[in-house]
Amino acid sequence: MLHNEILDLLSHHRSIRHFRNQQLTREQVDTLIQAAQHASTSTFSQQYSIISLTQPDAKKELAEITGHHWLQNSGHYFVVVADQYRNLQIAQANDVDPYILRTADKFFAGVFDATIATENIMVAAESMGLGGTIMGSILNDTSRLIKLLKLPELTFPVLGIALGYPASQPELKPRLPMSEIHFDDTYQLSSNFKADLSRYDQLVSNYYQERGQNNRIETFSHHIISELGRNREQRADLIKNIREQGFILK
Amino acid sequence: MLHNEILDLLSHHRSIRHFRNQQLTREQVDTLIQAAQHASTSTFSQQYSIISLTQPDAKKELAEITGHHWLQNSGHYFVVVADQYRNLQIAQANDVDPYILRTADKFFAGVFDATIATENIMVAAESMGLGGTIMGSILNDTSRLIKLLKLPELTFPVLGIALGYPASQPELKPRLPMSEIHFDDTYQLSSNFKADLSRYDQLVSNYYQERGQNNRIETFSHHIISELGRNREQRADLIKNIREQGFILK
Repeated sequence: MLHNEILDLLSHHRSIRHFRNQQLTREQVDTLIQAAQHASTSTFSQQYSIISLTQPDAKKELAEITGHHWLQNSGHYFVVVADQYRNLQIAQANDVDPYILRTADKFFAGVFDATIATENIMVAAESMGLGGTIMGSILNDTSRLIKLLKLPELTFPVLGIALGYPASQPELKPRLPMSEIHFDDTYQLSSNFKADLSRYDQLVSNYYQERGQNNRIETFSHHIISELGRNREQRADLIKNIREQGFILK
Repeated sequence: MLHNEILDLLSHHRSIRHFRNQQLTREQVDTLIQAAQHASTSTFSQQYSIISLTQPDAKKELAEITGHHWLQNSGHYFVVVADQYRNLQIAQANDVDPYILRTADKFFAGVFDATIATENIMVAAESMGLGGTIMGSILNDTSRLIKLLKLPELTFPVLGIALGYPASQPELKPRLPMSEIHFDDTYQLSSNFKADLSRYDQLVSNYYQERGQNNRIETFSHHIISELGRNREQRADLIKNIREQGFILK
């Protein structure tokens, strides 16, 4: 493997959920937004927005939505939003039919833009000595979140980011063998998939047993199986709520 | 704004579409995959896969799908895929009902994972002196791409990445004013939106007139309006094709 400062940073990411009691400065926040803004966007249409949660009441409500109360102790919290509403203003100011902005295609363009911007924020934050967690759990109750953030039509929340100064540095979690993630030309799990998975399950089990805190006995397979036991009603309104924001998913 | 090597790299991203005639080495490719693998994934479920297009015929077909023939001159080409098929194997090996993997929620988790991994590849590549373009245009004909990559059920292509050694270094495109992208607590375009947009239109127009190649007269507003003129039938089968891969979007 090749090495440089940036590659080493990318390969040492871990999710941070325990923070020192220190808020980010406005300069730090602006620097993170600048990094987000310089990421690629689909057809250079900049179809995302970023909302900082600054009020304790709002963080408390998001803690209830996500079930992750620790986010209230983060040094800063962002929600990144797929956004065709801003471009809708341009369409309307120019009397152009905005239909295209409502399509599934443009909805996904917004999701891609928001997600790419999210990862740039995380990488930028880590380069500044911060840490954090990207949170999909903001989708647990999108109706409530849309009200909380007063999201207009043609916007939809995508991911949350809790950031701060790490109070602890977890071990690095082992990833799946590269040969089961990366293929040449066509999709093909390797003929060693079962053996690879079994070795990987052992690695993950060692990680959970040996890490400093919250240790447990769990393999990757156990973890996936426990995900399959989720409540089927959770987030079952996702597509309905996307449609209610004005996107045509058909 | 704060500065360090990584922040400066992130803030100097530009899309590269002209490459020197040099392929990436296996070590470079593996290093990029490693960077992708260490990005965050939703519930640590690693719900994405990466396919390298190595064959000229496959690149030619993708050039036809995307309409971007220049991609055939890239030094490496990745397609990143939302992937619940690998975890389906775990469910089946353990006789667990895989229903949850088919939900919209898990489809989006795969899209987030694939998109975050894509951005890590781009950042890692740029740190190695490479450049490239993230391509949503692979979605122009998802049926054909799914056949080309032999994608199994519960997978779906998300983004393409053309990489290589830059043959030219375009100017940095100006981004929207930060105050129109980043809000505190609730979504709110600033009361100066019209004036901000007008100034930004001028900045973009200057950029297109002054850049070294392919210069034209175009503001951001013109650009968005021209996007709205797209063929409405393009990618109209997106949701249908996601469903045909076994995801339940309802």
